[in-house]
Amino acid sequence: MNYPIKKKVSTIKLTSSSNRGMDLEEAINLTNEIYIQRDIAYIYKKPIPIQVVSVDYAKRSAAKITEAYYKVPSTTDYNGIYKGRYIDFEAKETILKTSFPLKNIHEHQVSHLGHIVKHGGIGFILVAFKSIGKVYLLEAKYVVEFYQRFLTKQDRRSISLTEFEEFGHLIPEGYALRLDYLKIIEQLYFSK
Amino acid sequence: MNYPIKKKVSTIKLTSSSNRGMDLEEAINLTNEIYIQRDIAYIYKKPIPIQVVSVDYAKRSAAKITEAYYKVPSTTDYNGIYKGRYIDFEAKETILKTSFPLKNIHEHQVSHLGHIVKHGGIGFILVAFKSIGKVYLLEAKYVVEFYQRFLTKQDRRSISLTEFEEFGHLIPEGYALRLDYLKIIEQLYFSK
Repeated sequence: MNYPIKKKVSTIKLTSSSNRGMDLEEAINLTNEIYIQRDIAYIYKKPIPIQVVSVDYAKRSAAKITEAYYKVPSTTDYNGIYKGRYIDFEAKETILKTSFPLKNIHEHQVSHLGHIVKHGGIGFILVAFKSIGKVYLLEAKYVVEFYQRFLTKQDRRSISLTEFEEFGHLIPEGYALRLDYLKIIEQLYFSK
Repeated sequence: MNYPIKKKVSTIKLTSSSNRGMDLEEAINLTNEIYIQRDIAYIYKKPIPIQVVSVDYAKRSAAKITEAYYKVPSTTDYNGIYKGRYIDFEAKETILKTSFPLKNIHEHQVSHLGHIVKHGGIGFILVAFKSIGKVYLLEAKYVVEFYQRFLTKQDRRSISLTEFEEFGHLIPEGYALRLDYLKIIEQLYFSK
């Protein structure tokens, strides 16, 4: 399942740390809309978890939240159904050229992905290497494994690009289906 | 799949409109925890959708949200996996004695449940009639049907308790498994 890759990939120059050329979330949302329109799948973004501290009910029309904080997420960004199977994933970007730091994923999220797999769902992460314009899908079993390595050996704080190339799958990019990640899921779970 | 019911059920006196004797959300959350502990299923509550308008980044430790509003939910409260199948439901309480008003469910949520079913998931609502202390499960196909009736015939603004008795399923209540709704799901989808 490895894709041909250029060996010099890690030397491609990072254009800018604020490079907005590829917005991962936007690409996923557009892709999911097409999946829904074409009746391929029903996958959507979950709300961001927020801890509400105080609310002003003065206006009867709309309660105004006046103090709240972002919570550490205990689940992932996206979930839904594809051909009857439960789909669940987290999407992350990195500007680093050769690795993805594991501190970008919370322990609860890894545990969440573990639960998904245990109960027969399909879990994974999508990681965009912005500097090289590539997005990889890495199945939950590997995420759990690499995270375990991180917890036990504190010197392994990231997943290298080479590991994404070896254990992950490059997502094909297109026009309407900006990031057709279900193509990979189809190959991995439904083409037997 | 109908359960024996007392015919005079609708005449039971409503104790109080602020009756906290049965907190549906609490009962579901406790039940879901047991499901996870016993490796029966992995079902969890989604975050409440909130529209953030302004954030104060003055304190580096924690960004403080200073203005935000509750959004109309486009999905349901709970989802997860049971035996590999996608599970999705909304939980609602009513203090009414003989019917559940459909205005308590948003059109987007009904559409969401329709999508779930279309793609092979299991969707439903749990409705607690607090006055009689009973919780019913009603499958998504009926929710969609009754909502359609509501949209086309504006005089049918609710689902009657009699309809819950006929088309729905009474949830067994217990000590550890406060509301064992998966028992009904098991009977409906896995005992063939």
